[in-house]
Amino acid sequence: MKVFVILPILKHEAYEEITLKELSRVASKDMEIHVESLEKGPASIESAYDEALAVPGILELVRKAETQGFDAVIIDCMGDPGLEAAREIASIPVVGPCQASMAIASTIASRFSVVTILKNVVPLFHDLTLKYGVAEKIASVRTIEVPVLDLEKRWNEVKEALAREGREAVEKDGAEAIILGCTGMIGMAEELRDILKVPVVDPAPAALLVAEALVRLKLSQSRIKYPTPPEKVRKL
Amino acid sequence: MKVFVILPILKHEAYEEITLKELSRVASKDMEIHVESLEKGPASIESAYDEALAVPGILELVRKAETQGFDAVIIDCMGDPGLEAAREIASIPVVGPCQASMAIASTIASRFSVVTILKNVVPLFHDLTLKYGVAEKIASVRTIEVPVLDLEKRWNEVKEALAREGREAVEKDGAEAIILGCTGMIGMAEELRDILKVPVVDPAPAALLVAEALVRLKLSQSRIKYPTPPEKVRKL
Amino acid sequence: MKVFVILPILKHEAYEEITLKELSRVASKDMEIHVESLEKGPASIESAYDEALAVPGILELVRKAETQGFDAVIIDCMGDPGLEAAREIASIPVVGPCQASMAIASTIASRFSVVTILKNVVPLFHDLTLKYGVAEKIASVRTIEVPVLDLEKRWNEVKEALAREGREAVEKDGAEAIILGCTGMIGMAEELRDILKVPVVDPAPAALLVAEALVRLKLSQSRIKYPTPPEKVRKL
Amino acid sequence: MKVFVILPILKHEAYEEITLKELSRVASKDMEIHVESLEKGPASIESAYDEALAVPGILELVRKAETQGFDAVIIDCMGDPGLEAAREIASIPVVGPCQASMAIASTIASRFSVVTILKNVVPLFHDLTLKYGVAEKIASVRTIEVPVLDLEKRWNEVKEALAREGREAVEKDGAEAIILGCTGMIGMAEELRDILKVPVVDPAPAALLVAEALVRLKLSQSRIKYPTPPEKVRKL
Amino acid sequence: MKVFVILPILKHEAYEEITLKELSRVASKDMEIHVESLEKGPASIESAYDEALAVPGILELVRKAETQGFDAVIIDCMGDPGLEAAREIASIPVVGPCQASMAIASTIASRFSVVTILKNVVPLFHDLTLKYGVAEKIASVRTIEVPVLDLEKRWNEVKEALAREGREAVEKDGAEAIILGCTGMIGMAEELRDILKVPVVDPAPAALLVAEALVRLKLSQSRIKYPTPPEKVRKL
Amino acid sequence: MKVFVILPILKHEAYEEITLKELSRVASKDMEIHVESLEKGPASIESAYDEALAVPGILELVRKAETQGFDAVIIDCMGDPGLEAAREIASIPVVGPCQASMAIASTIASRFSVVTILKNVVPLFHDLTLKYGVAEKIASVRTIEVPVLDLEKRWNEVKEALAREGREAVEKDGAEAIILGCTGMIGMAEELRDILKVPVVDPAPAALLVAEALVRLKLSQSRIKYPTPPEKVRKL
Repeated sequence: MKVFVILPILKHEAYEEITLKELSRVASKDMEIHVESLEKGPASIESAYDEALAVPGILELVRKAETQGFDAVIIDCMGDPGLEAAREIASIPVVGPCQASMAIASTIASRFSVVTILKNVVPLFHDLTLKYGVAEKIASVRTIEVPVLDLEKRWNEVKEALAREGREAVEKDGAEAIILGCTGMIGMAEELRDILKVPVVDPAPAALLVAEALVRLKLSQSRIKYPTPPEKVRKL
Repeated sequence: MKVFVILPILKHEAYEEITLKELSRVASKDMEIHVESLEKGPASIESAYDEALAVPGILELVRKAETQGFDAVIIDCMGDPGLEAAREIASIPVVGPCQASMAIASTIASRFSVVTILKNVVPLFHDLTLKYGVAEKIASVRTIEVPVLDLEKRWNEVKEALAREGREAVEKDGAEAIILGCTGMIGMAEELRDILKVPVVDPAPAALLVAEALVRLKLSQSRIKYPTPPEKVRKL
Repeated sequence: MKVFVILPILKHEAYEEITLKELSRVASKDMEIHVESLEKGPASIESAYDEALAVPGILELVRKAETQGFDAVIIDCMGDPGLEAAREIASIPVVGPCQASMAIASTIASRFSVVTILKNVVPLFHDLTLKYGVAEKIASVRTIEVPVLDLEKRWNEVKEALAREGREAVEKDGAEAIILGCTGMIGMAEELRDILKVPVVDPAPAALLVAEALVRLKLSQSRIKYPTPPEKVRKL
Repeated sequence: MKVFVILPILKHEAYEEITLKELSRVASKDMEIHVESLEKGPASIESAYDEALAVPGILELVRKAETQGFDAVIIDCMGDPGLEAAREIASIPVVGPCQASMAIASTIASRFSVVTILKNVVPLFHDLTLKYGVAEKIASVRTIEVPVLDLEKRWNEVKEALAREGREAVEKDGAEAIILGCTGMIGMAEELRDILKVPVVDPAPAALLVAEALVRLKLSQSRIKYPTPPEKVRKL
Repeated sequence: MKVFVILPILKHEAYEEITLKELSRVASKDMEIHVESLEKGPASIESAYDEALAVPGILELVRKAETQGFDAVIIDCMGDPGLEAAREIASIPVVGPCQASMAIASTIASRFSVVTILKNVVPLFHDLTLKYGVAEKIASVRTIEVPVLDLEKRWNEVKEALAREGREAVEKDGAEAIILGCTGMIGMAEELRDILKVPVVDPAPAALLVAEALVRLKLSQSRIKYPTPPEKVRKL
Repeated sequence: MKVFVILPILKHEAYEEITLKELSRVASKDMEIHVESLEKGPASIESAYDEALAVPGILELVRKAETQGFDAVIIDCMGDPGLEAAREIASIPVVGPCQASMAIASTIASRFSVVTILKNVVPLFHDLTLKYGVAEKIASVRTIEVPVLDLEKRWNEVKEALAREGREAVEKDGAEAIILGCTGMIGMAEELRDILKVPVVDPAPAALLVAEALVRLKLSQSRIKYPTPPEKVRKL
């Protein structure tokens, strides 16, 4: 099974490496993982504006993945940018970490909190969870106020902040589980779980497992929900 | 008051003209309306994919409108493409016809149906109405199965189909009012209202009136909901 | 365009004047505004009981407005008293400030708080927002604990309290915008907006703009939602 | 225990009698039932307008009931007109047949249909069920298109229509139980239950039993939800 | 009228006695109440696991009640264990205190809190209120952290804790009424009501009154919602 | 990885075999699957009563699975009987096919229908989907009216009925995907998918993949949602 992981930001070696490393840890043996970033787009995704600029590049990579015979695509950002458009133009399953991690979380808890990067992206989660029909399950969306591109540099501070906000989510907001709210936090779930004593879902690995499940179950996005776009002039 | 109307498709004289004409009919005397289409993008919007391709051009025009001193912007497509990103980067109000027409409809009816072009776009309305928190008010989304670019050519057929589907919406689905589900249907509301005896909301004129209301009330999109995107490298 | 504004309380010169003045500030040039109070009813509206007593007088004025050729009616109280009955007996649009201000607010924010007068009226908002299908958008209903008839006398205290509760709504309750919860607070929105840095909706002006939008769009309340009452004996 | 039943319409001997007779059938032995109609108001209630005109008279009778030492009041109309105002001014429990019958129905079924008189009142149920938080439990609201004042004259036709619409509600709409949608249908539930083989709730008797339950449990409406109206000038 | 009250725990004299005594206080004169405990099952119910172990014994007693000519059954535990299965195999009404007390509470308040025993059972209420369609009405579920079997021993501590948590529910969570969250708290409602000045619903008495209402109204659970189980081999 | 599959019915060779065979088809190479039926319980599960009788045996097998070192448990029935109790007493993940298949379906469609065996079980799905917070995603629950124990005997009839009801679900109810509503239908999804051209989710294989995902992600049910039951006397 070959999975194409789109890192929908300008090339960033460190994120490509850690993403590949962490995804490989949970992948089944026969899985081949390819991680690729954008040539044009934003350096990180922290607004609807960033998402909008990333989408054209994402859609190109989705086409490439299908052409090259991949079995599934992951758009590796917690905002699931371009997910609907990508699903319309692909026949292989396209998976978004936000939707996937919430599906996984809903099988082990009935209410969960997202702990994410910046206040700026809280409204994006509000809209996404409404669109996905899981808004009732969200206990809270909390932030650590560290921008994406600082996450790796400020690893220890990030861990502490995640633990602090995660604990508040559990104790004050009624969260029964935590979802890491940025795929840039990849690899932090296990440690956090040990501290908080509740399930902590790492969205990119969750997306990988959902992608694998869909492929093995021979399922892909519904063509009724994501119909093939009609032919027409499109000037790029 | 100056309102900038973005027609988020490749230049199409007929649509530009009829849009300007119909909007001018409902505008107050001191309003100046400018209609402008995209240089790059899709010929029409009938999928999430089309929307994704239109957004970069929309965002450019939003910046242009603000720079040139317009008081408000309308993204003249019923899918409200790029609305969130546009609001993040603008300080003047940016209005989407879908959101605006549903706000207007909700002041005269508690349940309404959308009659739109193609089955393909029904899922887009599903997601939009969830995101806007009005899904409970939607009695149904019905289609006439005419592509956007055929609307003006097949005007009579379109009218008949709107009347037929509108009537079904009222009689079978419990609609108390109808919203035209494509800004390409502009100008058809009044005739349909006379036939169906229920309010029929024309989305682009509704958007214009909402834009005017916001400007006169000195209101614009909330910065908490639509925060200014952080500075960063963005390669276009 | 002529709009009839019903002040659904016993005659109160100061409120009539300020209402006319503030509405005139946002009205378009060709709009004629008539403000009229009740001959029988409560001195102010702070309970369902007050509303019930105001309704017969409101309905009389609605009939008068239509007979005298007005284009629209506003029932100028945040509880929208008698709105359904008024719409049943009128063919011109009848607008309620609560419903109208929430429709306007929903075009610029997804969650908003109401800051109103007394704890007593909080349950009325609870019921109204459920009835209007906007309960999910309400971040909170906060009160300043000043009775309607004291608002003008205690203007400075009121302003401070509005600022304090508005800030709490934004910081603690997740409000992205504020709606003034009493039409007696008319004229305070702009100053509050400057303090809070979020949109503040003044309900009576919002109602006026919605009324104007409906008239210009040639729309009125749906006869399916608000059918004409059957003929029968009614002893008054 | 003494229960005051307000028939919120102009005096109508037949309805007073049948109401008393049918309520007495389900009442416990020690219950004393008093039925009283309005001196001013509508001949029947089939619109929000009728409700508005009935409310002042209802409130007078509510005061009378409390003054005369009754233990509970029932506002005997399926629209529960004036319920909130009545509860504000009374300390004894005031019960509405719509709310009470839906509470009873929800203990034996999860989805039920209302079969009522005229299309005109369907929107009133829509609003009431939203306000009461039971809208999700309503499978449908169906009508027999017989005005209230014709119910007793056209008894056989009414029965047939109730059976027909009740059956459709069960077979097509997913109703697990039926609520008679007008207190003027009192006494028809048992026969209908035998025909349809599903529970059929008669709203006035249900209201009586809820009133009795509240009195015996020493419960009344919450003062937080229904606060005592503040003192002020009220000109009647 | 004869009502069979199943105490779904291992025999516990004190609870049997106080239950009988308190139920008798609110029962009508002609009611005969029989209280019976389980021979096999848990000593108390504080988890889904306890509920699961209690159900087989409950179902046996339900059959016994119907065979012996009782008019109604109450499963006297706030978790309503086995309610669905019991209703499938009985034709007489089977009533659960959780569902019944919430139905009663919803006729006097629109939002209420449950004050119960242990944090462990909070998720059970979450699921129950979703299943019953009343989740929106729940202001909060608070706990006093006293296990069921300690309730009577620590009566004074329990009262104080109920008052404290009840007050918080009213002041902080927006509760308009309180429901005692364990049938083992029977008899404490009245005192608490006097302290808190809001309605306090005692679930077992509420269930008794609902059972009586159903019997007098000749209603029982809907066979569509609770169909008779098909015949088949069942090895016990 | 070792997964214990509980077939919560009396031993039935054919179902054990086909379940093992079909699950093995989608399992990863290193997975060991053990299928075991009940010694006491119902021959099939078609009511809440059947579920109640199956639960004690299920709980015994859950303990056995954990003791014997399995990594996860599947309760292989579409009603997820005993899921909450099982999760309370286990530390390894316990997965229910209903919850798991709906989680999987929600990643590829926003609305789906369940096609199941008998009308009798429709209310069980109603309650389950409310409890799981996915009721809004259910387009319909349709039935083929074939009892569980006849499924294999009437394979061709079953296939035709599934195709017919699946098609109606898509064309009339708005389903974008289908979930097989009984784990006894295992193995039929692929053929049905080819006929209907929409995703068809087979619940037991979906449960297996979710179980595998949880194990690989080192996740298990939240202890806050499913706390360990307190120690106490429990007489079995």
